[in-house]
Amino acid sequence: MVKLENMKNISLSDSVINLDHGDPTAYEEYWRKIGDRCTVTIRGCDLMSYFSDVNNMCWFLEPELAEAIKELHDAVGNAATEDRYIVVGTGSTQLCQAAVHALSSLAGTQPVSVVAAAPYYSTYVEETTYVRSGMYKWEGDAWGFDKKGPYIELVTSPNNPDGTIRETVVNRPDDDEGKVIHDFAYYWPHYTPITRRQDHDIMLFTFSKITGHAGSRIGWALVKDKEVAKKMVEYIIVNSIGVSKESQIRTAKILKVLKETCKSEAENFFEYGHEMMKNRWEKLRGVVKESDVFSLPKYPEAYCYFFGKTLGSYPAFAWLGTKEETDLVNELRRHKVMSRAGERCGSDKKHVRVSMLSREDVFNVFLERLANMKLIKSIDL
Amino acid sequence: MVKLENMKNISLSDSVINLDHGDPTAYEEYWRKIGDRCTVTIRGCDLMSYFSDVNNMCWFLEPELAEAIKELHDAVGNAATEDRYIVVGTGSTQLCQAAVHALSSLAGTQPVSVVAAAPYYSTYVEETTYVRSGMYKWEGDAWGFDKKGPYIELVTSPNNPDGTIRETVVNRPDDDEGKVIHDFAYYWPHYTPITRRQDHDIMLFTFSKITGHAGSRIGWALVKDKEVAKKMVEYIIVNSIGVSKESQIRTAKILKVLKETCKSEAENFFEYGHEMMKNRWEKLRGVVKESDVFSLPKYPEAYCYFFGKTLGSYPAFAWLGTKEETDLVNELRRHKVMSRAGERCGSDKKHVRVSMLSREDVFNVFLERLANMKLIKSIDL
Repeated sequence: MVKLENMKNISLSDSVINLDHGDPTAYEEYWRKIGDRCTVTIRGCDLMSYFSDVNNMCWFLEPELAEAIKELHDAVGNAATEDRYIVVGTGSTQLCQAAVHALSSLAGTQPVSVVAAAPYYSTYVEETTYVRSGMYKWEGDAWGFDKKGPYIELVTSPNNPDGTIRETVVNRPDDDEGKVIHDFAYYWPHYTPITRRQDHDIMLFTFSKITGHAGSRIGWALVKDKEVAKKMVEYIIVNSIGVSKESQIRTAKILKVLKETCKSEAENFFEYGHEMMKNRWEKLRGVVKESDVFSLPKYPEAYCYFFGKTLGSYPAFAWLGTKEETDLVNELRRHKVMSRAGERCGSDKKHVRVSMLSREDVFNVFLERLANMKLIKSIDL
Repeated sequence: MVKLENMKNISLSDSVINLDHGDPTAYEEYWRKIGDRCTVTIRGCDLMSYFSDVNNMCWFLEPELAEAIKELHDAVGNAATEDRYIVVGTGSTQLCQAAVHALSSLAGTQPVSVVAAAPYYSTYVEETTYVRSGMYKWEGDAWGFDKKGPYIELVTSPNNPDGTIRETVVNRPDDDEGKVIHDFAYYWPHYTPITRRQDHDIMLFTFSKITGHAGSRIGWALVKDKEVAKKMVEYIIVNSIGVSKESQIRTAKILKVLKETCKSEAENFFEYGHEMMKNRWEKLRGVVKESDVFSLPKYPEAYCYFFGKTLGSYPAFAWLGTKEETDLVNELRRHKVMSRAGERCGSDKKHVRVSMLSREDVFNVFLERLANMKLIKSIDL
């Protein structure tokens, strides 16, 4: 066993590590320890129909998932669920596109401008351009956006890639042509203090980033307006005729256990996640501090209503910068670390996005390589 | 128990029955009898990563699903799998859009025309129009299509809605601007004789219509050309960052059992499905024959290599016509039967598509209502 472990480390120490995607495998260990309580068993004759609940506008949403979502938000206190429609999606990726589609189809004129304040989640660019829709148009950075006509602002808070707390930046008082989609993928207690119960028109959440179950492809939207929710549902029907029932049932079960652990001292998932993230960030800040060439954003502390104390932020991605005039993504690649280029996020070559959610051994190799890069750069200077 | 059954029937006899969608719940009984062999158990720590196989171009495809797909096609003999890329999708719905997107993005000029011979699957219209893409344009009926430039023909065989065996109809010799997507959702032995091993460039299949597991949202494409497969994968990455792992794992397990039953006398799923479909079609043809107002297509018999004998076709949908000058979809709706309007399929008011895959009790209520419609029509005449 020890021998195998060593072999694994040797092989890892040679290989390229991929921190470009935010693959949240960091949490596997927790779910392994939780044991059978999250195990789902599905028989051959289960979940065969397209329909989950013919009386729900979102007829492909499993009722027990809807219930689990509401209970979890209630327990965490991060979002209002009452008087809202829940729309389930194949990840929040599909839901973001469904929301842009819905808002655009309800707008008076098209194409509707879509913007996000830089640095933004690079995938927004691809999501709003790849089908070359005539309904909406990616207009890039929301800072300084001043085009007339209807627009959609994507607000991610805490922000991907840089972890900052965000609000809308397009400021048009009394303008009812502006719509906002709030992406709250990371508004959970292990990443950031829960400072308020969010209460916006369209709020997106994803299973992936809460518990680490990215492979399930489950996201949900909490939507105030009935017409918007209806259009989102229509989009998902044409796009994929609903969402995997197996994933929904499993998500429901895990979210229920997650909610139960909220009250537990020993097993609280958010406590576990918070400690892990804090630990990783402290290590990373340690390496960066030792270096003369790297930088990281600083986050203010805030009172977290979930934990009942003042805490810092420990985002799912590190927005790593360099003080050198260098192409950081290439620099890291030379050191066998794949990251996401700042330019793809509407920023510059001196920044990259690095996932903080890899498995522990991969994260440690990353720290090691980063520390070595610093040394090499120092010699270069 | 008997009382409850009766109550259920009473309630069904009053309610609207929905045969608009092809919800394939007819097969539930078979899978109930198969018992534990298809049961999957998924632990909390399983299937967490986005990635299934980083060495596969389609990195979100579970290797055991790929294996099960190849083995099933080999056992049934309905499609060639060698020297092909397998792309998994959230149903063949997502894959059809991925294929149209891929072929369009590789075309010299855009928008690429998309056509299908009428009567066609009505959802093709929605799939190719809802995002108002600039890359492709729905041009409707392939019969008589003569627009210059690149085009994609969607060929569904057996056809949805009318069950006929189809080949391409746009005839442009030596024209390399024409591409074809073959939708083989219904090319399985319970619906139609397997007369050849299909060997086309892009072939789509869906789990839903083989075994009835529509809720899993799993489809796959067999793709010859590497660039096309790559573009399809790219589409699915942006559209939903892959496909539910839970659904894939479960599909793999069920397809493996399905393949095993192919060799069994007592449990052969296709034998079971074939008998059920044949029985339903005979009953339906009986009702239609008794009527003066309805019509159904006739299908030629053919030698089925899977069953090793000459057999008829028993499609998943009935393409019901009327000899009267009437709006058949409304006529049926008045009798509490929801069906899909022929006009939505590029046909006329005198035709509707009716699902043959409902639960047995629903199917019987449909037959009853159809028989009564005949009587009412006769009195009217």
